[in-house]
Amino acid sequence: MSGEDAPAQQQNAEEQKQQQQQETKTPAESPKTESKPDPPPSSASAEAATAADTPAPAAEKAPEEDTFSYRALVLTGYGGYDKVKLQVKKGKPALKSGEVMVRVKMCGLNFADLMARQGLYDRLPSPPVTPGMECSGIIEAVGEDVTDRKVGDKVLVLNRSGMWQEVVVVATTHTFLMPEGMSFEEAAAIPVNYITAYLMLFDFGHLRPNQSVLIHMAAGGVGIAATQLCKTVSDVTVFGTASASKHEVISQGGVTHPIDYRTRDYVEEVRKISPKGLDIVLDPLGGSDTHKGYNLLKPMGKLISYGAANMLAGQKKNLFVVAKTWYQQFSVHTLSLIQGNRSVCGFHLGYLDSETELIAQAMAVIMDLYRQGKIKPRIDSTYHLEQVGDAMRRMQERNNIGKIILTTEPMKEEEKKEEAKKDEEKKKDDKKKDDKKKEDKKKDDAKKEEKKEEKEEAKKDDKKAEEKEEAKKEEN
Amino acid sequence: MSGEDAPAQQQNAEEQKQQQQQETKTPAESPKTESKPDPPPSSASAEAATAADTPAPAAEKAPEEDTFSYRALVLTGYGGYDKVKLQVKKGKPALKSGEVMVRVKMCGLNFADLMARQGLYDRLPSPPVTPGMECSGIIEAVGEDVTDRKVGDKVLVLNRSGMWQEVVVVATTHTFLMPEGMSFEEAAAIPVNYITAYLMLFDFGHLRPNQSVLIHMAAGGVGIAATQLCKTVSDVTVFGTASASKHEVISQGGVTHPIDYRTRDYVEEVRKISPKGLDIVLDPLGGSDTHKGYNLLKPMGKLISYGAANMLAGQKKNLFVVAKTWYQQFSVHTLSLIQGNRSVCGFHLGYLDSETELIAQAMAVIMDLYRQGKIKPRIDSTYHLEQVGDAMRRMQERNNIGKIILTTEPMKEEEKKEEAKKDEEKKKDDKKKDDKKKEDKKKDDAKKEEKKEEKEEAKKDDKKAEEKEEAKKEEN
Repeated sequence: MSGEDAPAQQQNAEEQKQQQQQETKTPAESPKTESKPDPPPSSASAEAATAADTPAPAAEKAPEEDTFSYRALVLTGYGGYDKVKLQVKKGKPALKSGEVMVRVKMCGLNFADLMARQGLYDRLPSPPVTPGMECSGIIEAVGEDVTDRKVGDKVLVLNRSGMWQEVVVVATTHTFLMPEGMSFEEAAAIPVNYITAYLMLFDFGHLRPNQSVLIHMAAGGVGIAATQLCKTVSDVTVFGTASASKHEVISQGGVTHPIDYRTRDYVEEVRKISPKGLDIVLDPLGGSDTHKGYNLLKPMGKLISYGAANMLAGQKKNLFVVAKTWYQQFSVHTLSLIQGNRSVCGFHLGYLDSETELIAQAMAVIMDLYRQGKIKPRIDSTYHLEQVGDAMRRMQERNNIGKIILTTEPMKEEEKKEEAKKDEEKKKDDKKKDDKKKEDKKKDDAKKEEKKEEKEEAKKDDKKAEEKEEAKKEEN
Repeated sequence: MSGEDAPAQQQNAEEQKQQQQQETKTPAESPKTESKPDPPPSSASAEAATAADTPAPAAEKAPEEDTFSYRALVLTGYGGYDKVKLQVKKGKPALKSGEVMVRVKMCGLNFADLMARQGLYDRLPSPPVTPGMECSGIIEAVGEDVTDRKVGDKVLVLNRSGMWQEVVVVATTHTFLMPEGMSFEEAAAIPVNYITAYLMLFDFGHLRPNQSVLIHMAAGGVGIAATQLCKTVSDVTVFGTASASKHEVISQGGVTHPIDYRTRDYVEEVRKISPKGLDIVLDPLGGSDTHKGYNLLKPMGKLISYGAANMLAGQKKNLFVVAKTWYQQFSVHTLSLIQGNRSVCGFHLGYLDSETELIAQAMAVIMDLYRQGKIKPRIDSTYHLEQVGDAMRRMQERNNIGKIILTTEPMKEEEKKEEAKKDEEKKKDDKKKDDKKKEDKKKDDAKKEEKKEEKEEAKKDDKKAEEKEEAKKEEN
């Protein structure tokens, strides 16, 4: 982890205070403070150290505004994994009417966060900013006019950004009560993936019994959510792409036909089984895959594009790949849609943050399905905030099966030391990879040059042959 | 009516025979004859006359192949209303396995038929060909392996083409039993309009309570069907465009906000009432209206394009208008769809003719709604086959409120004489209109020329002024 590490002791102080607050909540302790949180500190390590050395003892009742602090992940600029740093924010966030403060337990990692880090997602405010669209936790304070939430409620939260920190303040409409028996990991894994999958399949897709669906990245968060939701409708055939090593898991999860997109042409594979095509294609890839998906649609079929994962070709933004994906991005004419009786939809939850009613309705159904045991998030792995770089790498390299979670629980000291060692190795490894890439590119360029020369030679030969032929013809 | 008129007597002969057949159906009279129907006669009037002069007396039992004849509308080439002619086809059509023969009572007129006449609809085979996508009638014969239909069944029929004639042979899957109490007019008005409206609103649109829908041409066949179907869902707000004279009727039919598109900007009108926009836009117009509709969509909104009525600017194809509509035709990029959380769909029933199961399911729901009294086709007017030109004109000039129907019942002699008079007047009227258009165009061109000259003058003046200005500056 390359971000600054916040000291573990601080968390303990915070937890003590939290408990006390919950035990003895009085109007004086209500969060209607006017003091605003400090702006994200630019050199957090120093402040973090200070905070750690002098934890405000709860017994002394120092003014909360001064002593309240919490760890937060902050995107400091666009770029690689190391651009997300762990910092400490000071000062108690102000609570406006209709807002609640949540002590965060777990956060969800999403593809949009990876895009955002590279500067490819316009819904995240400019750095420095705390990323993260979802988390779970416990309500620690409620603002004026909040009647449907109370301190101590366990909630999951969906927000445009800012969820990767220990304390968040959000409108109460962005929180949803956790059902009995749901873990904080599960709760943090639900909002983005399940609402996305639900609205795509049932609002745009109008999924019905006996239909067929293609799910790309079927082992990813949305992929697994979509598969489970497909299974709530009778006799739906699910085609799911994932690398071969993940097939067993996704098959057990409900994918009828797993396809290894690395070794097979998924279009051919689908056509073999479903010659008439598909009713719904969920497309998180963009670029040329959107064209393929469109051409796989049956009459009345729906293509739902919800990302451009193809734009992510490495840790840092690759302008060539971005431009290529953009260039290949699908565009369609209504006359083509009319003749094919087709629908093309675009979905991104990040642009729906003002649609609270729509989201609430979807969430209510999802919570019901959870209670009925029809859906259950699959957690791939849980990382400490300190390990956010590893977490992002795992997702970007598509090594996960299910959801990647960040926990706000601080790392133990021995874990940290191990982590530091691993970090060094990873940096070396990254450098090696980079060097290899550069070398490969050089070789590639050299080869291309050679080929070009060969082609030109060949052309010249062809031309000579043609000339001879012509000459012969003329002779005849 | 400019088509050749078939004699009325013939119809009587046919009816007698039909009755006899139904009364004494024996294997010998079963329709498994191998003789194919004659190709559409090129000079039908002579044949019609012959047929009329020597009606085959049923008592004499002349071979059916020779005596069986029926009137049919035939598109003889692309162009104006007079390109659809009434002709007589001879010979009993062969019935293949799974097919039925229907004695047609009523036929429905659709926008696609107008497009087809101008050569703008690629689902109609090349002329000479019988147009028409829907009709109602009585089953007169059934082919082998037909178990779900019997002679005497009243049916409505949906087919790619060929329905505007007295006798049609179709696959049994293209026929649907008429519910008790449904008139033949109503039955002929249902298939195209109601299936189109149903699949658009409920499959692509996923219409739900409290949503809002914009219906263009709300007094047309699809418009009225869509309005009625919207009303089957609670609290749906319907915006409907139509000229002011039709507002009372469409309001009674369920349109919440009628908008006179001729005097008002419908985008403004919608925004006044629904500032956030619309959930569904049904767009039969194409061209610039598709852009407007797209921009009116709410998040999760669906634009459903189902035609390019804007291409129809007159009786004959207007290449300029076609090109303009085509040029303005909407095209959308998935990234725009993603950022707006929008869906763009294309629908045309003509391209769904192989989707028998989908159609049957939709029709079953529609028939149920009819039985429950929740939908009821509104018949605008009924024309004889002889008057098909008038019928098409009424639709093209958008004078109808509801469905325009063609009846196979022959015209009475006195009606025919009146019709002939009217025809003459109309021809004169058309000529006048044409002349006026030409004159207007000349005037327009002259004006344009004037304006151009003015502009050039103005430009020159501007330039002079600029030059002066420059000179002044230099002086300073």
